[in-house]
Amino acid sequence: MTEAFKSGRTIDRLYVLDGCQDGPVLTIKREAAKAGTPIRYISRERLDQLSETGRHQGVIAVCAAYSYASMDDLFARAQAKDEDPFFILLDNIVDPHNLGAIIRTANAVGAHGVIIPKDRAVGLTATVAKASAGALNYTPVVKVTNMVQTIEALKKKGLWFVCADMDGEPMTRLNLTGPIGMIVGAEGSGVSRLVKEHCDTIASIPLRGEINSLNASVAAGVLAYEILRQRLSM
Amino acid sequence: MTEAFKSGRTIDRLYVLDGCQDGPVLTIKREAAKAGTPIRYISRERLDQLSETGRHQGVIAVCAAYSYASMDDLFARAQAKDEDPFFILLDNIVDPHNLGAIIRTANAVGAHGVIIPKDRAVGLTATVAKASAGALNYTPVVKVTNMVQTIEALKKKGLWFVCADMDGEPMTRLNLTGPIGMIVGAEGSGVSRLVKEHCDTIASIPLRGEINSLNASVAAGVLAYEILRQRLSM
Repeated sequence: MTEAFKSGRTIDRLYVLDGCQDGPVLTIKREAAKAGTPIRYISRERLDQLSETGRHQGVIAVCAAYSYASMDDLFARAQAKDEDPFFILLDNIVDPHNLGAIIRTANAVGAHGVIIPKDRAVGLTATVAKASAGALNYTPVVKVTNMVQTIEALKKKGLWFVCADMDGEPMTRLNLTGPIGMIVGAEGSGVSRLVKEHCDTIASIPLRGEINSLNASVAAGVLAYEILRQRLSM
Repeated sequence: MTEAFKSGRTIDRLYVLDGCQDGPVLTIKREAAKAGTPIRYISRERLDQLSETGRHQGVIAVCAAYSYASMDDLFARAQAKDEDPFFILLDNIVDPHNLGAIIRTANAVGAHGVIIPKDRAVGLTATVAKASAGALNYTPVVKVTNMVQTIEALKKKGLWFVCADMDGEPMTRLNLTGPIGMIVGAEGSGVSRLVKEHCDTIASIPLRGEINSLNASVAAGVLAYEILRQRLSM
């Protein structure tokens, strides 16, 4: 397990037996802390359930099925195509089918990458890979510690940010061209207040019926295609 | 069970024990044939698995969690809003999450109803209702025996038909206004050849990446919102 940390293979999360003070487990916890890997302390029963082999020695690491990219990779992709950066940021999407479908959409609209938060949200599991229909092999995904700090850092590199929310301006009336970061909120709760405050514009997707929201991956698709429509007709 | 048929409650499908010649089962089969309900003949093991109670007496009916509407209901909805009809037709969507998400999208874009085929495709199960986020309570769903015949009958009532497919014209260059039926294909295989031949126009959703299709509910959302955009800007 210490080798896993040293090899640079991405570990999404570490489950540790609550109260365990074994030497090897403490070493792994130190490595995890250095790498910024989230640690969850759980009971032996829960750990036994999570273990596929039943032989866990007090700790289980959840590895990403795919490796993560760096922010530089995303800018390099935009530059290679001679296009304004177009990144899609996910504010705590927890459903792996939605995450996979959004990565697939990101590929389809020619976005240069997807940015997901390190904590809480779902990682790049096999289910996500399957739902992405192969897009995960092409569209880079970056994992960041703090979404708000990431937004501010990307603003300094020339990006501006739009998120979808009911109380925004109708999306077709906004100018959505230029280097852009599109933020997709969580299922149900939408974009978090803090992240919304750091957006430059709030776009609303027209809703003409009785239901006041769309499925998260459908909303992401509709807004991403409006951005693409405006980019193509420039 | 015979009462279920007589009450008019919609039965999506009938599972009958293969080779069973019991009197009551034969009566039910006659009622099913009259109602046009699809019948599947299966083994006792499979029937036992499908039965929630284990006491099935040789036949199980799968009922819709929601009731179906008639085609007249859809036209009445359009007329009540003084709008050109906007129907969404699903050509064999089998994933209940996709069906639910598309019904939710249909509600959001103000479509007057959804049309699904009687055979093969998924019906209005509890999973579909949940994925529709309540839209199933508002947006009527009609079940039809033959999709091609339905398209031809609706053409006589003034509708024209568009489906999404890779080899079509870019959707933003088409005129998608007027009384319209939008056809969504199955996951993976897309719109069937026969149905496509009966469409007036084939619209392509731009794909700028390596993956050559979108998730079925995302594709439905993107095309439906392009139709809404054009309807609103008329």
